[in-house]
Amino acid sequence: MWLSTGGRTGPHLIPVAFIVDDDVVVTATGENSKTVRNLQETRRARLALGTTSDVVMIDTVLDGLVPVSKIASDAADRFAAVSHDPRQMPGYVYIRLFPRRVQVWNGFHEFPGRTAMLEGEWLSNPVD
Amino acid sequence: MWLSTGGRTGPHLIPVAFIVDDDVVVTATGENSKTVRNLQETRRARLALGTTSDVVMIDTVLDGLVPVSKIASDAADRFAAVSHDPRQMPGYVYIRLFPRRVQVWNGFHEFPGRTAMLEGEWLSNPVD
Repeated sequence: MWLSTGGRTGPHLIPVAFIVDDDVVVTATGENSKTVRNLQETRRARLALGTTSDVVMIDTVLDGLVPVSKIASDAADRFAAVSHDPRQMPGYVYIRLFPRRVQVWNGFHEFPGRTAMLEGEWLSNPVD
Repeated sequence: MWLSTGGRTGPHLIPVAFIVDDDVVVTATGENSKTVRNLQETRRARLALGTTSDVVMIDTVLDGLVPVSKIASDAADRFAAVSHDPRQMPGYVYIRLFPRRVQVWNGFHEFPGRTAMLEGEWLSNPVD
């Protein structure tokens, strides 16, 4: 997954592993990273899955930063199965992101109807 | 190419086509887009090529926004060969981005020595 954040000093973008925990996307990175600083400043992240020509784009708000000592063990175990394990990496923190908008498209011709979730609700009828 | 920008309101991230024009990365998007607003605010973009597990990451500064009427025809022709043609798309603007740092890595094991360009200069000996 691509994780983009931004603030007064500009953007940051990192590749990360992730899991989904109920309705929340969970990932992790360094607690002193630019990603964490940007999230503390704006509480927004924009996530991309797939390729530049076949995209799932997810606008999220920060649900919370979770210290390694506070993470639920089932979520931590699932994350460790797809990534290095933050529980073994000093200075890491988990990031919980709540999806608010989901857009999916494969080229300009799919711009109409690309929005499948809006304001946190899945749409029965996608919109632009 | 993934193009991330950020500002006071948070991040933006879009997939875009691009060309290289001498030392500058050239792309295009809507002149009223969040990408353009963020660039006007912070003059920074972070670009990613490749996949989340095999990355070329490029930190750039804005060289300039170029109206369709001002773009050099050879650059415009080359861009049109890899994308829709902004000259045919009302409200589009070209974006010129100047690379300042380039990092390349394929997994954590390649973090050491992943920085191949720093402060706009290619390094003979990559650093972390």
